Amino acid sequence: MPVLLSAEQAVSLPELVQEINKTGLDCKLPQGAQEPMPRIRGLGSLLSAGPQEISFLSNPKLHELLSRTQAAAVILAPEVHAALDFEPAFAPVLCPQPYLMYALLAQRFDQVRLSGLPKGIHPSAVVDPSAEVGEGAAIGPFCVVEAGARIGRGSRLGAHCVIGAGSTLGQDCLLHARVTLYHGVHVGDRAILHSGVVLGADGFGFAPDPIKGDGAWAKIAQIGQVRIGNDVEIGANTTVDRGALDDTVIGNGVKLDNQIMIAHNVHVGEHTAMAACVGVAGSTQIGARCTIAGAAMLSGHIRLADDVHVSGGTAITSSITEPGRYTGVYPFAPHQDWQKNAAVLGQLGGLRRRLRSLERQADEGADSSRNTHNQN
Amino acid sequence: MPVLLSAEQAVSLPELVQEINKTGLDCKLPQGAQEPMPRIRGLGSLLSAGPQEISFLSNPKLHELLSRTQAAAVILAPEVHAALDFEPAFAPVLCPQPYLMYALLAQRFDQVRLSGLPKGIHPSAVVDPSAEVGEGAAIGPFCVVEAGARIGRGSRLGAHCVIGAGSTLGQDCLLHARVTLYHGVHVGDRAILHSGVVLGADGFGFAPDPIKGDGAWAKIAQIGQVRIGNDVEIGANTTVDRGALDDTVIGNGVKLDNQIMIAHNVHVGEHTAMAACVGVAGSTQIGARCTIAGAAMLSGHIRLADDVHVSGGTAITSSITEPGRYTGVYPFAPHQDWQKNAAVLGQLGGLRRRLRSLERQADEGADSSRNTHNQN
Amino acid sequence: MPVLLSAEQAVSLPELVQEINKTGLDCKLPQGAQEPMPRIRGLGSLLSAGPQEISFLSNPKLHELLSRTQAAAVILAPEVHAALDFEPAFAPVLCPQPYLMYALLAQRFDQVRLSGLPKGIHPSAVVDPSAEVGEGAAIGPFCVVEAGARIGRGSRLGAHCVIGAGSTLGQDCLLHARVTLYHGVHVGDRAILHSGVVLGADGFGFAPDPIKGDGAWAKIAQIGQVRIGNDVEIGANTTVDRGALDDTVIGNGVKLDNQIMIAHNVHVGEHTAMAACVGVAGSTQIGARCTIAGAAMLSGHIRLADDVHVSGGTAITSSITEPGRYTGVYPFAPHQDWQKNAAVLGQLGGLRRRLRSLERQADEGADSSRNTHNQN
Repeated sequence: MPVLLSAEQAVSLPELVQEINKTGLDCKLPQGAQEPMPRIRGLGSLLSAGPQEISFLSNPKLHELLSRTQAAAVILAPEVHAALDFEPAFAPVLCPQPYLMYALLAQRFDQVRLSGLPKGIHPSAVVDPSAEVGEGAAIGPFCVVEAGARIGRGSRLGAHCVIGAGSTLGQDCLLHARVTLYHGVHVGDRAILHSGVVLGADGFGFAPDPIKGDGAWAKIAQIGQVRIGNDVEIGANTTVDRGALDDTVIGNGVKLDNQIMIAHNVHVGEHTAMAACVGVAGSTQIGARCTIAGAAMLSGHIRLADDVHVSGGTAITSSITEPGRYTGVYPFAPHQDWQKNAAVLGQLGGLRRRLRSLERQADEGADSSRNTHNQN
Repeated sequence: MPVLLSAEQAVSLPELVQEINKTGLDCKLPQGAQEPMPRIRGLGSLLSAGPQEISFLSNPKLHELLSRTQAAAVILAPEVHAALDFEPAFAPVLCPQPYLMYALLAQRFDQVRLSGLPKGIHPSAVVDPSAEVGEGAAIGPFCVVEAGARIGRGSRLGAHCVIGAGSTLGQDCLLHARVTLYHGVHVGDRAILHSGVVLGADGFGFAPDPIKGDGAWAKIAQIGQVRIGNDVEIGANTTVDRGALDDTVIGNGVKLDNQIMIAHNVHVGEHTAMAACVGVAGSTQIGARCTIAGAAMLSGHIRLADDVHVSGGTAITSSITEPGRYTGVYPFAPHQDWQKNAAVLGQLGGLRRRLRSLERQADEGADSSRNTHNQN
Repeated sequence: MPVLLSAEQAVSLPELVQEINKTGLDCKLPQGAQEPMPRIRGLGSLLSAGPQEISFLSNPKLHELLSRTQAAAVILAPEVHAALDFEPAFAPVLCPQPYLMYALLAQRFDQVRLSGLPKGIHPSAVVDPSAEVGEGAAIGPFCVVEAGARIGRGSRLGAHCVIGAGSTLGQDCLLHARVTLYHGVHVGDRAILHSGVVLGADGFGFAPDPIKGDGAWAKIAQIGQVRIGNDVEIGANTTVDRGALDDTVIGNGVKLDNQIMIAHNVHVGEHTAMAACVGVAGSTQIGARCTIAGAAMLSGHIRLADDVHVSGGTAITSSITEPGRYTGVYPFAPHQDWQKNAAVLGQLGGLRRRLRSLERQADEGADSSRNTHNQN
């Protein structure tokens, strides 16, 4: 369904395969593939792809769709192709990593759209004379680039972005509409930042104010910064706070989904990925290659080792030193069942005591019974 | 307290009742109602309404306020009115659905404010020449309407809205300030979108990149779209991501509160309502007329039947095929009680084993006791 | 590392101490402190502070850093200073509350940056002629100030802020870029509002619409307002909805972190602080001086007493009448351990019954055993 290219932009299948292989993949058309090769204008799922689109099979559960798809071409593993027991209506593309090829193809098609985006600085943008805007960069309508900010070559800012004083963006970044960087925020190359992202807001730091008293709080001005590595993507409405004194640090290749909250002084290791609605409290350090599933929460001042995988909705309240998967979710149930069982939860300590007491009785009983038997 | 209309805009009570009845309600003034009828300028709760305002009673717990309210008029059920044991100081309005009449009245009064909002395209807005703006539509200051976008008749955009390339808005929509639609997002008629809403940001899709290695992720460009039906309301800072290949779909009449996250390829059925802070992971399908209470989380790739009601804070981790209410929340307690009981949670498997072992002993004991008795 | 002042702005240490003492602290340099006193340009942690910066020791765990820090000066408690067993390389500042002095110093240094922000109304801003802007206020690029809005003396709005019709901001507020106030929102003095904050969006109110039927919802227009006291700070992307009929109220001195959701008609008592990702459902009343830790959720229509402390990730589903700390979090564990134990959760009611039955048997056994003994 999502035809992405105009008829003139269509690519012949062999060309497309050749292009993708340049990234290091090793895909090919089977020997003696039927001519003429289809010209491809888009990418779709097996169910939705039409006769001008390419599709792919990576999930074995969808295998049965192969005989029904309308796709012009389908990427599939060589062994899946070899085992086909019918003559496919599509042109097969043999690839050991069909999912990765799909990812690269989707990028390739989307690039056509991206390359059509406006270039240059929109006349409505407010760019401070002391800011530097690199060659080929694009600044959208109503953007504000403050004093001393630097925007790298080829980076593109959608409408309404704000780059605070002295903040820096690397090369070839893509900021969608309405991204806000406070002052002193540093983002590496090739970042993708989605709408509503806020980088560098104040961390949540207060000291009890005994002078004002009555529970009043004194603000601890947050004078640290935010440092974000290369190849980082940050989803819509996610916030990364600036450090209190030192910096909040997001490593290279980190992927953050929407509505995530990264508090002040957190460190996130390289290539760690977090799904939506995750919250990470202050000063926590997360290792490399971790995955944190949706709506998980991490307490402050803890450490997660490399390669830790946290299940969705889990509260991690203490450090994790070993790789592996960790979970803590209350299992859902029909409401009345839950009610009955939840009522017992608060009595667990008591239940254990009663169990122990029974066990002691049973032991004594066994002894006394042994005694009784002896007496017999 | 919230007087909404100027003295000139005040409506007489019989007029107001007549107006609301046009929507299909059947409300009336009691026979022989006292003249002169009050002129109404606003709507308030029983406690706060003043002598120029109408109020209502729908919650029986508030019945005692009837004798004390300062309201000029009160909507109440006919049977409640019949059972009053005092002469009310207010003009009663008899209505079988007082809460619904309240809802319609609140809309009616708010409409006066809405109709006073600026019309036309603000001179500061950036509207691409290829975009279409329907008759009577309003485009606020600093809005950006990109190439090929279409905005239906009578739709109003607050300040700072962005409508991406090729996106479409139906008729009579109300976008508050600072709503962002990416490209390829389609919204039906009469939508209400609140500030900070982001529709069509990229879904969270990555494939492990074995070529780069080291845990690096390859982005899967998200080339699907977002399709939203008619009569949908979406709360502040809620995000609905675009589909990976196919579309993310929100049905007619769906109501989403603030800070909700709808991931790529999710389908939400008609008239389903979700309270704030709910997260729905990718490809999940939710039926019609469901209610998902605040901060509940739904895992990806699951299905919820029609008429499923999920309690607040509950993690739904597998499909639900039957209507009904489902819950899974850890009951809170004073911290020390929680600590004692939570410590036992991790031993539940062990406790069950010990219980079984006791039961076996008890059974054997009963047998041996029976044997003993026999021996006697 | 974060040197904040230019060489010309540097302050001599005795001057700095004198300045801070004006706020009511009682800090001093030790008698016979070595001349010349350092000139201070910034503030850093013991580990990162350089020779032009001041640091502090409040966490006893960091005591060992005292002998290694490069800081020019260090704030520490008099008794810690007295017990030092080495001649410090830094100039000591003796202060009974080092953490509070750090907070005040951070404010003091940040103030230099803040005072350098642009003044006046940016020419691109759209300010309605009927709006009032107080003396010394600053309105950033692309701000929109609607009819009848009032902005107090000395308040500063970053880029892209929207102040709705009739809304009011007190004196000396600081709104970062992209804060949105709907109409009828009232904020006191000295507020700090971060990017993406939305105040006054519609509360989530719908009545079943039996006329449309099929599960359709009728919108309850939200005609209440938002009232926020003095000295309130609200974090990035936090939303506070307007009341349905009456108002949503945030007390003086309340501190809200990022991505918090405050629903309609909630009242938050003075000096209560909430960490990120907290959700508070409609009409709930929270007392004074409470702390709500990250990702906790409060159900609607409940009350929390003063001085209640809710642990992170806890769902508070009913009222709390006593001060104290409350918790309800499922303890996390390695996934397989969790699976085993969670499977037993749904059987708790059954386990308790089995335990009771064993206890009865044991009692009867004890009786029968006593009887047996008697018979002997």
